[in-house]
Amino acid sequence: MSLIEITKQSLAELIELINAKNQEELLPVLEKLYPPDIAELFDELSLEQAVYLASLLEPQKKVDVFTELDDENKLTFLRGYETEDIANTFFAYMDSDDAADILNAMDTQKGKEILRKIADKEHSKNIASLLKFPENTAGSLMAKELIKVRENWTVKQCTEEIRKQAEEVDNVYSAYVVDEFDELIGWISLKRILLSKESQKITAIFNDNVISETTYTSGEEVAATMQKYDLVALPIVDAFNRLVGRVTFDDVLDYVKDEAEKDYQMLSGISESVESTDSVMLNTRARLPWLIVGLAGGIASSLVIGNFEAELAKNVQLALFMPLIMAMAGNVGVQSSSIMVQGLANNSITNSGLWSKLAKELAVALINGLVCSALLMGYGFISGNNHEIMMTVSLALVAVILLAAIVGTSVPLALDRLKIDPALATGPFITTSNDLLGLLMYFLIGYAILG
Amino acid sequence: MSLIEITKQSLAELIELINAKNQEELLPVLEKLYPPDIAELFDELSLEQAVYLASLLEPQKKVDVFTELDDENKLTFLRGYETEDIANTFFAYMDSDDAADILNAMDTQKGKEILRKIADKEHSKNIASLLKFPENTAGSLMAKELIKVRENWTVKQCTEEIRKQAEEVDNVYSAYVVDEFDELIGWISLKRILLSKESQKITAIFNDNVISETTYTSGEEVAATMQKYDLVALPIVDAFNRLVGRVTFDDVLDYVKDEAEKDYQMLSGISESVESTDSVMLNTRARLPWLIVGLAGGIASSLVIGNFEAELAKNVQLALFMPLIMAMAGNVGVQSSSIMVQGLANNSITNSGLWSKLAKELAVALINGLVCSALLMGYGFISGNNHEIMMTVSLALVAVILLAAIVGTSVPLALDRLKIDPALATGPFITTSNDLLGLLMYFLIGYAILG
Repeated sequence: MSLIEITKQSLAELIELINAKNQEELLPVLEKLYPPDIAELFDELSLEQAVYLASLLEPQKKVDVFTELDDENKLTFLRGYETEDIANTFFAYMDSDDAADILNAMDTQKGKEILRKIADKEHSKNIASLLKFPENTAGSLMAKELIKVRENWTVKQCTEEIRKQAEEVDNVYSAYVVDEFDELIGWISLKRILLSKESQKITAIFNDNVISETTYTSGEEVAATMQKYDLVALPIVDAFNRLVGRVTFDDVLDYVKDEAEKDYQMLSGISESVESTDSVMLNTRARLPWLIVGLAGGIASSLVIGNFEAELAKNVQLALFMPLIMAMAGNVGVQSSSIMVQGLANNSITNSGLWSKLAKELAVALINGLVCSALLMGYGFISGNNHEIMMTVSLALVAVILLAAIVGTSVPLALDRLKIDPALATGPFITTSNDLLGLLMYFLIGYAILG
Repeated sequence: MSLIEITKQSLAELIELINAKNQEELLPVLEKLYPPDIAELFDELSLEQAVYLASLLEPQKKVDVFTELDDENKLTFLRGYETEDIANTFFAYMDSDDAADILNAMDTQKGKEILRKIADKEHSKNIASLLKFPENTAGSLMAKELIKVRENWTVKQCTEEIRKQAEEVDNVYSAYVVDEFDELIGWISLKRILLSKESQKITAIFNDNVISETTYTSGEEVAATMQKYDLVALPIVDAFNRLVGRVTFDDVLDYVKDEAEKDYQMLSGISESVESTDSVMLNTRARLPWLIVGLAGGIASSLVIGNFEAELAKNVQLALFMPLIMAMAGNVGVQSSSIMVQGLANNSITNSGLWSKLAKELAVALINGLVCSALLMGYGFISGNNHEIMMTVSLALVAVILLAAIVGTSVPLALDRLKIDPALATGPFITTSNDLLGLLMYFLIGYAILG
């Protein structure tokens, strides 16, 4: 273990030191901590305390800490500074993509002011150029900072270029090779540069098999490409194949994790990103909407069943198996819809295979339905339940499972066609609609057999 | 777009070329394809065709393609080769971690034979040393290949070492600095080495603030550390702080994705990794077990309600709101359990905060319960439903939501304590048990009020 854990005790001590503005004792502690650790510490401080602590950090480290804060905390923290300061002590040291992310979350007017006040005009232009890309595209994920070399350069020139840009580009894994029109034609690894003679021409040693994506490629595809080819960085080109930026593995790792969390939350009926550590109010706000959907579904169900009240009064035993029908409809619906959502996310579902996919889901549902129905008949036989009731329930079970599979499969596909996130069709949404349809089916079959 | 998409048409042509053993036309195509693309092509070929195509690849590329195959396909493919070949044309060129993964999936006897036949004894020993680590630990994720340098070396010596190991270590991002006991004391980036004078001593320029993990650290923690500190590679040490391997970002990306998928599947009631493109049988096998759990739960529910049959016959309207009670119990249970599972996965839930966490979940549930109950009462008032029935349902609703929150929160925590994957307590498991408890609660309250 290499990082110092800030225990509750030492946190209290640290806050005391901060309040006493005890620079002498604070500096060695800060020296030992990594930016993400200091960012965690900031979460525990007041704005005033955080601004004081930040003032003790050297410029680059201050920005590295800032970049690690939550989006909300970033905006709060910046309130402790003048626009001039924000521009030239924060934005000046930030990677273009991080800077653009903050501007996107900010008031537009304030953002324009900051951009105008950044002394390094090239950097300011770079940041502004990223603002135009829609969310969730390669353009919005990429950073402008990268090492670009010409094919007719020597290794020595290449090294000099890296030295020049070393300040700006933190993580160098490779250099990208462009032609005189700035078009991407290849790449060369840092290892190759290090191991080659200084007089060697780049053109003789670079790799012309280069994988790239365009600025308008979706985040999903960028992540899929980087994962498929195990790329630590992916060069991004414009429509004319000109090199304009790169996406690095850390952005993709964050992206993959965020997307997975979003899908997971949708499936569990939580409408916004919320953690168990968040406040009671935030937790309530994230969950109540889906509960109200469930409530409305429950009321609708009561109306559906209400139509069969006479039926129920005659055969009270029908009520006994309502939970079974609902549970099965819900489970099958969630299974089918989540398989679809994952398939759509992985791009493994194409339009051409749509009908065969539906047919396959129905085949799976039919097998599952028949097995479950047979098990239920067996139970009915052993338990000696009313024969007609068990016939009704078993028959309804197969029908409901098939219906739930159709709904679970087709709704995500339909949403995807309408450019709506198909993950919306998982969890409470699918269980609620399947409850309704399943119960209706159950009572109609009951009416036909028993009525 | 830089990679050649294998369309259906060209795939048929390729297979023809393979069957005709047309080396001349195949070679330029293979030249243009990346290993992951060729691996996808292998999925479409028979074993014989794949072995022929592999024979056209140079040794390292052949192994890179092989490494990209699915676990199952790897074992199938190796059946096309003699043990001797497997050892010295495949395993000899593989990274130690990839080789160990395959051995773990293989028959032990066959694995031992392969290890014995690898000509490079050092490599064979490296692979064998990885076999002893339990699944899902840093030791099982790491590779032995890395660049290790001594602090008293010069930059020139360091570069020579990289040159020597360049063949074995594909992706070099940094070198790790060790002392005379092989203990990890720091690291140095490739960029720093490239930009430093050849005569410079490593001790003067290396970074002694190094983040590492031990071989027995869990995969979750390794992923969390690499993500928190944006590390492209993480050095792994043994109990004596001796450097023994490194985990790279691509392993972690795969790991994060796999874990997220596992949790997602658990939540949606799918018991093994399965995709919509898999066969009907595989899809059935993955889903049927959870449906049978649901079926058993449904039968148990019918038995619970059976005890209240007389009650139901008297107040048939009680049946109308069973779906509402069940849906709410299910939704709240899934929300609570999935929040817990994510919290446990992110290590944001500690033992000390256990009671406060439970109290918070109860507070959220109470607010949600009261809001939903009030809405239901309002509906009852407007719809003119039987007053006593609506009282019963509203009261039961609050009770059931509280109960579901307690079950949803405590079951994952209990499983975690028992070292069982808490994700097991999401999805069908939690909805089934909440259905049962919720209905029991509903009828008991109904009995008390109406009976």
